[in-house]
Amino acid sequence: MHKDKIKLLEIFDNPYPGRDYSIVHTAEEFTSLCPVTGHPDFGKIIISYIPDKKCVELKSMKYYLQSYRNEGIFFEALTNKILDDLVKILKPRNMIVTGEFKNRGGIRSTIKAEYLKK
Amino acid sequence: MHKDKIKLLEIFDNPYPGRDYSIVHTAEEFTSLCPVTGHPDFGKIIISYIPDKKCVELKSMKYYLQSYRNEGIFFEALTNKILDDLVKILKPRNMIVTGEFKNRGGIRSTIKAEYLKK
Amino acid sequence: MHKDKIKLLEIFDNPYPGRDYSIVHTAEEFTSLCPVTGHPDFGKIIISYIPDKKCVELKSMKYYLQSYRNEGIFFEALTNKILDDLVKILKPRNMIVTGEFKNRGGIRSTIKAEYLKK
Amino acid sequence: MHKDKIKLLEIFDNPYPGRDYSIVHTAEEFTSLCPVTGHPDFGKIIISYIPDKKCVELKSMKYYLQSYRNEGIFFEALTNKILDDLVKILKPRNMIVTGEFKNRGGIRSTIKAEYLKK
Amino acid sequence: MHKDKIKLLEIFDNPYPGRDYSIVHTAEEFTSLCPVTGHPDFGKIIISYIPDKKCVELKSMKYYLQSYRNEGIFFEALTNKILDDLVKILKPRNMIVTGEFKNRGGIRSTIKAEYLKK
Amino acid sequence: MHKDKIKLLEIFDNPYPGRDYSIVHTAEEFTSLCPVTGHPDFGKIIISYIPDKKCVELKSMKYYLQSYRNEGIFFEALTNKILDDLVKILKPRNMIVTGEFKNRGGIRSTIKAEYLKK
Amino acid sequence: MHKDKIKLLEIFDNPYPGRDYSIVHTAEEFTSLCPVTGHPDFGKIIISYIPDKKCVELKSMKYYLQSYRNEGIFFEALTNKILDDLVKILKPRNMIVTGEFKNRGGIRSTIKAEYLKK
Amino acid sequence: MHKDKIKLLEIFDNPYPGRDYSIVHTAEEFTSLCPVTGHPDFGKIIISYIPDKKCVELKSMKYYLQSYRNEGIFFEALTNKILDDLVKILKPRNMIVTGEFKNRGGIRSTIKAEYLKK
Amino acid sequence: MHKDKIKLLEIFDNPYPGRDYSIVHTAEEFTSLCPVTGHPDFGKIIISYIPDKKCVELKSMKYYLQSYRNEGIFFEALTNKILDDLVKILKPRNMIVTGEFKNRGGIRSTIKAEYLKK
Amino acid sequence: MHKDKIKLLEIFDNPYPGRDYSIVHTAEEFTSLCPVTGHPDFGKIIISYIPDKKCVELKSMKYYLQSYRNEGIFFEALTNKILDDLVKILKPRNMIVTGEFKNRGGIRSTIKAEYLKK
Repeated sequence: MHKDKIKLLEIFDNPYPGRDYSIVHTAEEFTSLCPVTGHPDFGKIIISYIPDKKCVELKSMKYYLQSYRNEGIFFEALTNKILDDLVKILKPRNMIVTGEFKNRGGIRSTIKAEYLKK
Repeated sequence: MHKDKIKLLEIFDNPYPGRDYSIVHTAEEFTSLCPVTGHPDFGKIIISYIPDKKCVELKSMKYYLQSYRNEGIFFEALTNKILDDLVKILKPRNMIVTGEFKNRGGIRSTIKAEYLKK
Repeated sequence: MHKDKIKLLEIFDNPYPGRDYSIVHTAEEFTSLCPVTGHPDFGKIIISYIPDKKCVELKSMKYYLQSYRNEGIFFEALTNKILDDLVKILKPRNMIVTGEFKNRGGIRSTIKAEYLKK
Repeated sequence: MHKDKIKLLEIFDNPYPGRDYSIVHTAEEFTSLCPVTGHPDFGKIIISYIPDKKCVELKSMKYYLQSYRNEGIFFEALTNKILDDLVKILKPRNMIVTGEFKNRGGIRSTIKAEYLKK
Repeated sequence: MHKDKIKLLEIFDNPYPGRDYSIVHTAEEFTSLCPVTGHPDFGKIIISYIPDKKCVELKSMKYYLQSYRNEGIFFEALTNKILDDLVKILKPRNMIVTGEFKNRGGIRSTIKAEYLKK
Repeated sequence: MHKDKIKLLEIFDNPYPGRDYSIVHTAEEFTSLCPVTGHPDFGKIIISYIPDKKCVELKSMKYYLQSYRNEGIFFEALTNKILDDLVKILKPRNMIVTGEFKNRGGIRSTIKAEYLKK
Repeated sequence: MHKDKIKLLEIFDNPYPGRDYSIVHTAEEFTSLCPVTGHPDFGKIIISYIPDKKCVELKSMKYYLQSYRNEGIFFEALTNKILDDLVKILKPRNMIVTGEFKNRGGIRSTIKAEYLKK
Repeated sequence: MHKDKIKLLEIFDNPYPGRDYSIVHTAEEFTSLCPVTGHPDFGKIIISYIPDKKCVELKSMKYYLQSYRNEGIFFEALTNKILDDLVKILKPRNMIVTGEFKNRGGIRSTIKAEYLKK
Repeated sequence: MHKDKIKLLEIFDNPYPGRDYSIVHTAEEFTSLCPVTGHPDFGKIIISYIPDKKCVELKSMKYYLQSYRNEGIFFEALTNKILDDLVKILKPRNMIVTGEFKNRGGIRSTIKAEYLKK
Repeated sequence: MHKDKIKLLEIFDNPYPGRDYSIVHTAEEFTSLCPVTGHPDFGKIIISYIPDKKCVELKSMKYYLQSYRNEGIFFEALTNKILDDLVKILKPRNMIVTGEFKNRGGIRSTIKAEYLKK
């Protein structure tokens, strides 16, 4: 089921491929489920990258993030999977995905994963 | 139509060309249109540079930024175009243009492009 | 389907029925769906009341609020329905339910409904 | 020209007409033009009301507010006109319209007008 | 066991009994246990009163509040019991005790109880 | 000298004289001189009123407030004089002038004066 | 020793005795000693009044407040004494003195005393 | 007694061992006792690490931190011991433990200890 | 006229010349005039330096900054001139002067100039 | 007189001498006197260090800082002296003392001095 999410993402041509510049998208209203208890988790997903030939289309990324709404997934796996999916379709020069998750049992967690083109 | 905007910008002589120093202008009230839906976008434009021989005149820069009010333009293109226009007329030692755009469909975006004189 | 939600709520005896005192519960992480577009809505639900013979049990109220996660409902209907359900099982001396909903299309909305025992 | 704006507003039946409850819509991103200088004004419009038989539909209200984007209008006239238009189509039990306008020449202004059904 | 706590409280003579004036003590670092799960609860206790003949001594009140550290007690019972204990020893002209408890399962609660001398 | 300041103020016809509504102008950048030491004072002036037949024109009010820049005047006298001048030319239904003055010798002061039409 | 403090206060004629208006002085940097332990206490003193014939001179009030620096005095006594002293020399139409004292042993305290001319 | 705490911690396999990524857990509600006076200390514990083969399970870490509730321990020893315990069971690539402790006698303290795999 | 300002600055011997340490003075209440329109500009001046043999005396620096009150000067020239004047009399090991100027026509500006002893 | 202050400081053995870790103590409520005018100065003292064999005992440091209450001392001398005294008794691997002093005549000052073991 997880594999199909990536098909929701759409891309467009980077309008300024000759210059390194950064794009940061912050989705404040992210929710998924805890894979153990089934209870909802809430958080913020921050996607920061230097595009190469392609940029991610904003509306499609919104649908992609919404597709986690009713799935159980650990924070660590979620953050790394979003990075993998976006790297696969964008092949960016650099990308960092950060998941800031709200309080669960008195502890809040932030996961941050980076990709750097070799 | 985009080409004519640059004519709105006026410059004056850098009063301290012998020293590297930085100038940051922050325009909190920027608005343009989404090129797809035609709906208004709102944001903040931050122009940061080390002047060489010329500085940009503040009032003319205000008119330049206002000229985007009724034009449809993507965030990525907008930020890079403002950088291109200002670099063209100022030939600064360094310049960074940042566009911080407000929430659209639950996601807010920041684009940051840099120019460095070789 | 809406009718069954009320069964999720559990109550316990007010430990100090001889005194008027107020209880406010604030659930920061509420989400439901827009009945028109199917897109997720996010908000905060504030339940404030003066108990009479019964108080609402916290964990059951959490499950009750989570039961709206995948249902399409207008803000106005949602806020009033929560008030109706809680009044029905608690018969409080007074109750105010406030729904503070996040930005949708650039506009955020707050709905506030009050019940007063006659 | 001003007269046609009201046609943009759509209404729907109040789902809980038997109870007095309040609805507040806050549009953070409002812009119009100064009727004297033609320069853009920016502000926030807050519409607060107790519905009677009708509620205003959110998307139509967004289009209504956007219709001021390129019109010159004084803050005092604008705030009162929004109140008049909404009262005309909603006939609410009570309504307050507040316009909070950003800094112009070092002074920021707030206009607040109220309607109470007799 | 609860009954003995009140013995920890010490009082002193109100230095200005001829005038109605208010005293507010805010203890930011309160902790007790959930009577159901045994897990720690954290919160803030605000004691506000108009003294009559007696004031509560600050250090003794600190020890009184610390005495709840390892006891299981519901928020509603706790707030009302603190009010009862303080009213009993101070016989104030008026007293309000507010307990603001931190997030438990995504919901935070505030309990507020008042005593008014007849 | 003080008497001539009032001539700087310009007025225009209230566009909605049939309705009581409030106008608040906040000038964040006010400066005058201490009449004793000659040192600069800084503060914020807030003018809030219900107009009757006339409103004050914004630009002229800016010039009026700037005219205090190099005059020595006590906070108490200043706030009351602004109220007197504006009441004289506007004859409003109600007006409150508030002066919030910054720290001078470790103490900051706020003066608030009100006029109510009889 | 306490009795002599009042001699530090100086007054001047109210420039607008014909109108009720309010004056608030906030001294952020107040310090005295705990009469029991001798340790320093820190706080903020807020003096709010409606003057009758006299106003308090700002610099003299600063010296008056500084005179508590090395004296041991309880918060309740301190706040009431400042009110007594100022009422004695100003005979205001109304006065409220508020002392907001910083954290001592995890508890912060606010004392508020009011005088109303009969 | 301290030695047994480590047994409370549970681990799970790092789902993305092939990539360096960071995990930060912030526990806002930590409390222990002062080993000298026996009075409660309150603080925030921040655990930041780059996992190697194992991650710490969130609920077990909550129980581990709660186990300090009634133990007397100095801030310096506490922060270093948490680091030692977590390094022992996780063998992370890097770990930083920060303890931010609230005001005690007017002074608040932060202790920060780091481990780097050789 | 500008040349005479430097005479207002007084200096004293650095009490710890054997150690590199930094001094930052922040003047929140700076005002000068726009050289084009004559309108007042407001801002904050931050002076940060590592002293060598001399330090600047605080009161004299306050008078120096106040001397710009009624002079027309561009932000870029002002910031660089303050740096030049202070470097001339202090001969510091390093100095940075930052001018943060408030909103003018919707744009706020920050100028930052640095001096480093060779 | 200054020389005796250091005797107030007490030390204890670093419990983890084998690891470089940092300790930061922040005293929010510091007060001394201006050596010129005798008026009170207020500020915050931040002591940050990497301990070697010894740590400073918290309560003794509080008494040490309180000993400046009635002494006239310049900010620059004060910050450097605290650093000297603490370095002398602790011989830390590294230490930074920062003094953030409140507004005096409209200017606030921060002094920061560092010691690094050679």
